[in-house]
Amino acid sequence: MDRLIEAIRAKKNPTVAGLDPKLAYIPQFIRSAAYEQFGKTLEGAAEAILQFNMGLIDALAPIVPAVKPQCAYYEQYGWQGMRTLDATIRYAQQKGLYVILDGKRNDIGTTMEAYAKAHLGTTEVEGQQLPVFDGDALTVNPYLGTDGIKPLLPICTERDKSIFVLVKTSNPSSGELQDKVFADGKTLYASVGSLCESWGAQTRGQFGYSRVGAVVGATYPAQLGELRKALPHTFFLVPGYGAQGGGAKDVAPAFDERGLGAVINASRSILTAWQKTGADEKDFAKAAAAEAVRMRDDIVSEIGGIQ
Amino acid sequence: MDRLIEAIRAKKNPTVAGLDPKLAYIPQFIRSAAYEQFGKTLEGAAEAILQFNMGLIDALAPIVPAVKPQCAYYEQYGWQGMRTLDATIRYAQQKGLYVILDGKRNDIGTTMEAYAKAHLGTTEVEGQQLPVFDGDALTVNPYLGTDGIKPLLPICTERDKSIFVLVKTSNPSSGELQDKVFADGKTLYASVGSLCESWGAQTRGQFGYSRVGAVVGATYPAQLGELRKALPHTFFLVPGYGAQGGGAKDVAPAFDERGLGAVINASRSILTAWQKTGADEKDFAKAAAAEAVRMRDDIVSEIGGIQ
Repeated sequence: MDRLIEAIRAKKNPTVAGLDPKLAYIPQFIRSAAYEQFGKTLEGAAEAILQFNMGLIDALAPIVPAVKPQCAYYEQYGWQGMRTLDATIRYAQQKGLYVILDGKRNDIGTTMEAYAKAHLGTTEVEGQQLPVFDGDALTVNPYLGTDGIKPLLPICTERDKSIFVLVKTSNPSSGELQDKVFADGKTLYASVGSLCESWGAQTRGQFGYSRVGAVVGATYPAQLGELRKALPHTFFLVPGYGAQGGGAKDVAPAFDERGLGAVINASRSILTAWQKTGADEKDFAKAAAAEAVRMRDDIVSEIGGIQ
Repeated sequence: MDRLIEAIRAKKNPTVAGLDPKLAYIPQFIRSAAYEQFGKTLEGAAEAILQFNMGLIDALAPIVPAVKPQCAYYEQYGWQGMRTLDATIRYAQQKGLYVILDGKRNDIGTTMEAYAKAHLGTTEVEGQQLPVFDGDALTVNPYLGTDGIKPLLPICTERDKSIFVLVKTSNPSSGELQDKVFADGKTLYASVGSLCESWGAQTRGQFGYSRVGAVVGATYPAQLGELRKALPHTFFLVPGYGAQGGGAKDVAPAFDERGLGAVINASRSILTAWQKTGADEKDFAKAAAAEAVRMRDDIVSEIGGIQ
């Protein structure tokens, strides 16, 4: 997690831009060029998304420390979309960005290890270790317990990567299971939070945070503050700012007294900034950058700076 | 779920062959041919897996009603592996097999809808609806609650597809969260089971089972029997037979009095049958078919036939 925290401190910006591209967000000139080359096909759509992402990354790289591609928006364009995901990760890392893959992957044993190799590690082909998607961090789902998390940890340590475990998600029905109280008096989300502290215990870095982070939604500020206190070594990835309704005041409890401890995600508000502000389509990346600056200033002023 | 049940009845076989290919399971002659064409690369590995899968599917199609590719084993070979996943699904469906995609996907709202489109539905590209991976069923994770399941249901109904929700998984640490008892006296897994009944309530088919199935591990026979009684409209996908330790007696409680209600998965024991029996590598598919027949007979004789 140290690499992410260092990038946050260097850019004085505790936010991450979600790359959740829908075709409707992409300027017509980009789409037309892609369809001319590849047709109105999955390949054409995947090419349009790649060009859109590259434009966004160029404009955002000086401002944000990290990007978060959401795997679902690439998978929906098939293997062609996954090729665009791969190229997007490479491009973002070349531009110095930390890449959080939002895949919410989960399985057990050697199967979970295959996901770990796919997204954070390397895959062996006849004695050669080949990097695959090779993100810097991956979101994962805890429903299967320790068997679903353990296979990730050696790969995180060996290759300087991290994970974010779903703890308390930002959606309206997140409480349906996560808020239920067990007989021991703890909610499901608090139980998963405690597991994050123990899964990460051996991997704490120089800022006190481990390689096992947690996803905690901006839409539940009380739980954010409660979890920040209960999980002093767990870094938070906080979705739900912006389009989902969370504001700077809502996310403030996620931070520690140094202004560290969390990275706040916004996707739609950044990707669609050119449409919302009525900008020329050629200025889509400039509009995204302006929104990223607005978001940074909004949050940093609320939390009183980053040490 | 009716299409799966009809296939089970037609083949008198309530099992599914898991396609979880590792390079170590693949005969040398297939690997060598692939590497000659594409090098010892992700593409070469993906080609070897495709040829292995096609051989297995040819041999298994007369015996089993369904196959279950595990997404992780394809993702670990990158977009090239996902292209093999896509080709495997197409080939299996051409051979009349029902395809359960084991992706354990989970997210909320439009993001979950993107997964639903990717794996079960169609993706729109400029007014055209294009099928993508287009499996017949998808495994999903319930941690995010109803917001993570609802987006799948209209696509299941429109395109005659189904889902299997993780309820009680087969791994040793599944109890860590799933077996914990809530203040209302219900375990987490039983709570998710009840949700499956309500999520599926509007989609019951001719055999009484809905489009919302459940994953329940063979390694917990007591819970299998308890859940079979509690969830009369929920069809079960049961992993854990064979290599994970479950036997025919362990899975028997998953079935109703008609011999319906569940499909039992085995992966490793089928894929590695040629190695375990010391068969010639050219006979890998024949050995897999023999193991599939053995498994079928083992289970069908235990449950006393399928009506």
